[in-house]
Amino acid sequence: MQRFHSLGYWLAYKDGVYDVSSFVENHPGGKQILKTAGKALESCWKIFTIHQIDHVYETLEQYRIGNLPKGEREANEKHQETVLDLFQYDPERVNANETFFIRSQRPFNAETKPNLLVSSFLTSVENFYVRNHMHVPVVNINEFKLEIRNEKSSRSLSYDDLVDKYKSHTITSAVQCAGNRRAAMNNEHQGAALGTQWYVGAIGNARWTGVKLRDLLESFGLDKEGKHVQFWGLDCDTSQRCYGASIPMEKALSEDVLLAYEMNGELLSSDHGYPLRVIVPGTIGARSVKWVNRIIVSDKEADSHWQMSDYKILPPSIKEPQQADFDRVPALQESNVQSAICSPSSDEDGNKIKVLSVKPNDKDKRLTVKGYALGGGGRAIQNVQISLDHGKTWFQAELEQLAQPHMRAWSWTLWTYHINASDIPSKPFDIVCRAMDTHGNTQPDTPLGIWNVRGVMNNAWHKITLQIDDSFLKKAKELK
Amino acid sequence: MQRFHSLGYWLAYKDGVYDVSSFVENHPGGKQILKTAGKALESCWKIFTIHQIDHVYETLEQYRIGNLPKGEREANEKHQETVLDLFQYDPERVNANETFFIRSQRPFNAETKPNLLVSSFLTSVENFYVRNHMHVPVVNINEFKLEIRNEKSSRSLSYDDLVDKYKSHTITSAVQCAGNRRAAMNNEHQGAALGTQWYVGAIGNARWTGVKLRDLLESFGLDKEGKHVQFWGLDCDTSQRCYGASIPMEKALSEDVLLAYEMNGELLSSDHGYPLRVIVPGTIGARSVKWVNRIIVSDKEADSHWQMSDYKILPPSIKEPQQADFDRVPALQESNVQSAICSPSSDEDGNKIKVLSVKPNDKDKRLTVKGYALGGGGRAIQNVQISLDHGKTWFQAELEQLAQPHMRAWSWTLWTYHINASDIPSKPFDIVCRAMDTHGNTQPDTPLGIWNVRGVMNNAWHKITLQIDDSFLKKAKELK
Repeated sequence: MQRFHSLGYWLAYKDGVYDVSSFVENHPGGKQILKTAGKALESCWKIFTIHQIDHVYETLEQYRIGNLPKGEREANEKHQETVLDLFQYDPERVNANETFFIRSQRPFNAETKPNLLVSSFLTSVENFYVRNHMHVPVVNINEFKLEIRNEKSSRSLSYDDLVDKYKSHTITSAVQCAGNRRAAMNNEHQGAALGTQWYVGAIGNARWTGVKLRDLLESFGLDKEGKHVQFWGLDCDTSQRCYGASIPMEKALSEDVLLAYEMNGELLSSDHGYPLRVIVPGTIGARSVKWVNRIIVSDKEADSHWQMSDYKILPPSIKEPQQADFDRVPALQESNVQSAICSPSSDEDGNKIKVLSVKPNDKDKRLTVKGYALGGGGRAIQNVQISLDHGKTWFQAELEQLAQPHMRAWSWTLWTYHINASDIPSKPFDIVCRAMDTHGNTQPDTPLGIWNVRGVMNNAWHKITLQIDDSFLKKAKELK
Repeated sequence: MQRFHSLGYWLAYKDGVYDVSSFVENHPGGKQILKTAGKALESCWKIFTIHQIDHVYETLEQYRIGNLPKGEREANEKHQETVLDLFQYDPERVNANETFFIRSQRPFNAETKPNLLVSSFLTSVENFYVRNHMHVPVVNINEFKLEIRNEKSSRSLSYDDLVDKYKSHTITSAVQCAGNRRAAMNNEHQGAALGTQWYVGAIGNARWTGVKLRDLLESFGLDKEGKHVQFWGLDCDTSQRCYGASIPMEKALSEDVLLAYEMNGELLSSDHGYPLRVIVPGTIGARSVKWVNRIIVSDKEADSHWQMSDYKILPPSIKEPQQADFDRVPALQESNVQSAICSPSSDEDGNKIKVLSVKPNDKDKRLTVKGYALGGGGRAIQNVQISLDHGKTWFQAELEQLAQPHMRAWSWTLWTYHINASDIPSKPFDIVCRAMDTHGNTQPDTPLGIWNVRGVMNNAWHKITLQIDDSFLKKAKELK
């Protein structure tokens, strides 16, 4: 096969030939797709297993322009065995299935099971959700350099320089993927929300220690010019296109943006960005770049796929990202107010559970409901409310939260609400939760009004359907 | 009558005697109520006409402890004629009834009629809503002094010093009362939302010119210490208790907080704070103190009634402000995302209109719907959507907005949506609007989940019910 540049990008998969020219700009994995031009997809998808879902096959099929000549398919299959495996240095993830719902192996995308999420106020390193965009890079700490530059000058720091010469700062901050709760956005009227089908677990809350980005920028005189600060990671494809994102200078110079080297008092793990990651509290996880080794002060945003053509709220009229004019939509930064019910839950994938069987506590005959809430942009949570009648009446949950300065409430809030067993109907019933921040921002009742094809920022009321366990009902009946 | 201090505060109204001790802390007008202790209310309420509504009479009646001895009522009535009228210097408001729905004369509280609100992108001084908490003070500009102090030192500036010695800065910013749209919060299940019953017009958008608060604080070296900046106005009661509010130091030092002396290029009018008012963009109107003459840098918030015991979102379980523990609830600062339909509308009070009769344009046979939207805290509006089926499907409105820096979108957005006459049912139908900011914050569908007894921060979807005008329907029928 050949690459006919003037005709566009062709590639092969199994027996088909596809012209994906018009899809290139909208590939969720960025320009990596260009590497497959003129080639067979099988070898690539064997590595990037994230493609092995129905929607991807369906999207591809729209671009079929013909079939392979006889014999070529066999040749392609033979070629696969010699492809370099970018993911060979990903860490071993022991018993990951017990902790996570694994959404893809390559890149590794895994969300924390709901029960674990609310089992402690700080999420342990082992339980913290992982959202990788590519493979995990291997870092030799003695050779690691952090480059910091603008258009005029460039400097670099060793890891030891950074840790030793700058004051350390610790914050407690949640990190949440902009796609958290994406799966609940899919609906018949509006269509599919494309991307990793997260339930409620693409979020975690940890203590982060590192150097204030502000201190670093000031020490190099880079705080006076430039509208954006770009972060680039070591997770690059073979064409040296790396994961990158940026934040506005004003945020970069604020109190708590960190270049973090510790998570919960330990060195970062490789899945969480060893040796260095950015933490941009109050902002979508995509800006907290892992494995960061380049910081660029610029008048422009990072020109990465993930800043320019992803992590944006497209208008609801756009049903395929291919149709979108991404330049007209701003890159997401601050999160919105969020909450979710995490307990009761099951070890089964939350997206698949229609009705969850529950059993009130034997002791106090109450059903305890637990979850998290998080304000966007540092806004504190003022209340979390629970409704058993679809929003007609609401009850206040008890909150567990840190005392945090005004507009710097980066940590999540955990909440608890007890329902007396006698108030629980024997038929399946719904519980919904919603949170309000201290500024009166709250969550919409359904995702209908916020639906967008990339499924980002879903903060609709979270609903689960419960059914009292038969054995409990039987026992209660016998006691009567 | 006497004031029995150890027994509490007693007062008289008509034939009744009332012990309002337990109400003092929760009086919406602050400690002014103490001035009436031991006296007859008539004289006070004759001036503060805001009390002449049913709810106030009902509240008072709860505190009745007995009746006046014979003859005292007549004596009280005679006394009224000699009372000083604090409001004697309020400006003459010519034809105010044409521009505003007047909610109270004393203090003057008036909201702009909806059609006028969307008639221009900048709200004229004459059309701008007025929310006064007391009378309008009289200022001799040659004697006016702005006092700026912390605990250690105090300085003062003349009006000319301020205008001549500091650089001027102009911003376009909406100002919105936290109680805007309060009337729509009242409902049978949860009860009354107490306070001025605003429809959608307690908002306006203007260009403000003045001195940056940051420049002023820096020039006096007051920017390094203190957690809050308090503003106090010249609108004081006869005990020299003045209107006051405060904002956090971080906000005070941000780019666009102004001590404004001009509105839309003219000197401030007396109703809008002549000679000097604060403009805290992105924040509820109550912090943009009018007639400001004292700025205090402190570790404490202003101890005024309006900072401490009002303009807070009380928990929904609180049905009377008297029951509230105000200290547990933070003072409101940033606004939330808001939108409302302003046209079609009528000159009749929007709160009272059940169904509005409308007529599509004769020319293009379309019904044009217009309104405003505003993000909180400087967040830009990303979209405004219109639904004709209660939120099942949504259409995008066209937006008119300024190019504003990231997180400094202080101006409102105006929006327009056209409905083809052929798509309008002949029976009454609802239109709802909702806005989303660039961070995915949106409005809740109903006020049920955000109800609070003080009725602040209502940003539920705005709904109006329309009925096509009979004459149009008749004509359309004839043409068929």
